[in-house]
Amino acid sequence: MHISRVGELKLLKEVRERFSSTDADILIGIGDDAAVIAPQKENLVVTTDMMNEGVHFDLSYSSFFHIGFKLISVNVSDIMAMGGKPRFLFLNISIKKDTEEEAFWKLYEGIAYAMDIYGIKLLGGDLCSSKNDMALSATVLGTGSKIITRGGASVGDRIYVTGNIGDSACGLEMLQRLTDESKEIVKNSIRIGDTETPPILQFSDSPIHIDWNIAEPLLRRHLTPLARDSSEIAQYASSMIDISDGLFIDLCRICDESNVGAKIYLDKLPISYEMRFAAEIMGLDLLHLAASGGEDYELLFTAPTEDNLKSQISNLKSQRITCIGEIIEKDRVVVDKAGKELPMKAEGYQHFKA
Amino acid sequence: MHISRVGELKLLKEVRERFSSTDADILIGIGDDAAVIAPQKENLVVTTDMMNEGVHFDLSYSSFFHIGFKLISVNVSDIMAMGGKPRFLFLNISIKKDTEEEAFWKLYEGIAYAMDIYGIKLLGGDLCSSKNDMALSATVLGTGSKIITRGGASVGDRIYVTGNIGDSACGLEMLQRLTDESKEIVKNSIRIGDTETPPILQFSDSPIHIDWNIAEPLLRRHLTPLARDSSEIAQYASSMIDISDGLFIDLCRICDESNVGAKIYLDKLPISYEMRFAAEIMGLDLLHLAASGGEDYELLFTAPTEDNLKSQISNLKSQRITCIGEIIEKDRVVVDKAGKELPMKAEGYQHFKA
Repeated sequence: MHISRVGELKLLKEVRERFSSTDADILIGIGDDAAVIAPQKENLVVTTDMMNEGVHFDLSYSSFFHIGFKLISVNVSDIMAMGGKPRFLFLNISIKKDTEEEAFWKLYEGIAYAMDIYGIKLLGGDLCSSKNDMALSATVLGTGSKIITRGGASVGDRIYVTGNIGDSACGLEMLQRLTDESKEIVKNSIRIGDTETPPILQFSDSPIHIDWNIAEPLLRRHLTPLARDSSEIAQYASSMIDISDGLFIDLCRICDESNVGAKIYLDKLPISYEMRFAAEIMGLDLLHLAASGGEDYELLFTAPTEDNLKSQISNLKSQRITCIGEIIEKDRVVVDKAGKELPMKAEGYQHFKA
Repeated sequence: MHISRVGELKLLKEVRERFSSTDADILIGIGDDAAVIAPQKENLVVTTDMMNEGVHFDLSYSSFFHIGFKLISVNVSDIMAMGGKPRFLFLNISIKKDTEEEAFWKLYEGIAYAMDIYGIKLLGGDLCSSKNDMALSATVLGTGSKIITRGGASVGDRIYVTGNIGDSACGLEMLQRLTDESKEIVKNSIRIGDTETPPILQFSDSPIHIDWNIAEPLLRRHLTPLARDSSEIAQYASSMIDISDGLFIDLCRICDESNVGAKIYLDKLPISYEMRFAAEIMGLDLLHLAASGGEDYELLFTAPTEDNLKSQISNLKSQRITCIGEIIEKDRVVVDKAGKELPMKAEGYQHFKA
């Protein structure tokens, strides 16, 4: 049934029923003109981010579940990048009248799945119709005592990243090249912890195919990225950002705000086995994917170089951390495998750029 | 110049420069992954609301200034409706690549004009391209000690509204009927406190015209509504809501949450001289406009009936208040001029309703 036949009020009532939660800090939750939260002892960390159909996602390969999940992750990632703990969620959803009710609830299923992982509560928002495209916006409020900005890096600090970089961009390239049948498979399968019989994915522009075991981590990083927990990292970091637009462009933001330069060793960039394999099949430039791919939602941070710190950071319990370079005085350079220094090209996604 | 030629980063940089502000409570403002606000002693009041092209506004008669102004007002109005004081603003703006840079800044001019009136600071947000329509979303954080919900009305309480009701719906009807030339006049003129030579507006479907002095307050209430200040009202109110979907539908929300009924005296509804005049010219039903029009952004509240309270409320310094009825046990009724009781028809705008 189209949601236009269900009606806004009935949908909102059900959202309220499904998501109403008890928490000593929530004085007024979903259902009034605004939500009310009890005074917090720590600083408030607030971010808001949107995702638009045809710009941030494509319904030919993204399911409503994926979109809901990712909307929450990209916002939580911003809170994590400040060293905050995500707490409360507000949603603005505009969606076409002829959307199937089942799809609508799949969106909320993705949202709920992510909320559960991050331990956040939905406190309010707005639901309305859109003329053409779906547009989603989320606001996440968090709390934090030790705040890590982009502006705290000092000359000599080491530069670190969590996880692997480039997987998301590689996954996106793959998605765009898949046959319609393979896109459907992805749409119906990718979900964290999914354990269905591994399918084989076909490309539309070449006879090659790709194994699910190779494809899945890359597609997952693009479709349902998990925001990285910064609670351990924040104890050590001097500056931090999440990689949304691309490693180099986001590193340059740290450099800009900290008024420093950076040197990156290209052979230290953490590149996954799956990306190496898939990039070769697709004829993609590994370094370009890693340096400028974007949407990794890994944390990029700097930390001082005391020996005990270095070993603590490289042995964090919560996740794998890789040192990829160091903060220098002014220049922004990369060092290639041969040890040659080259200027860093800070490319990445930019809206409105012709 | 199209904003696609200016580029996202340059636009964001300029937004940051224009809007960066100092405030002891703002620890990190625009420009990092998230904003950071110092701990607040009072409760936090949070709301978020969106406005979409083709659904909430029409660029044939709304200027970018109007849209920016209204986006802030509708959010501030929700904070006011809880008895909160608006403080901080977050914006998500998705806009077409071929938008003129001048139009883009007009949007921010409307936003800034409203921010100044309400005394709120911009702390962050997101700017991105949209494929088809403009979609805007704002989040406002406020603070408040005495919170007024929809759920506090008791049998015997009087029901009050601020200002006039129906003006916005009447203004919208007018806008939709104007000739293209008259729409252009409105687009370029309506601004609070505007004092240009009064033009005459023409309707496209009839030979009648309407004087600017009549039209302006109605068009203004629709295009650039001012949120009502609730700081005095909150001292007296037992329940409160802002009228966004329509007087009766919003009153029913108070009844639902407070588990009470309501009786409204139709001849007490505050209807402006301008609306009476314009509704007659356009052949519109005055009571329908007032009861179900929506988008008035007036405050609807209840308060106990002690004599001293009644006189204090009717003599508030900040604004005109009208008593329109009383809270009763169960039924929801209207009383017409002849004293006859009829069931209240709670009609109003609902997204997705076929």
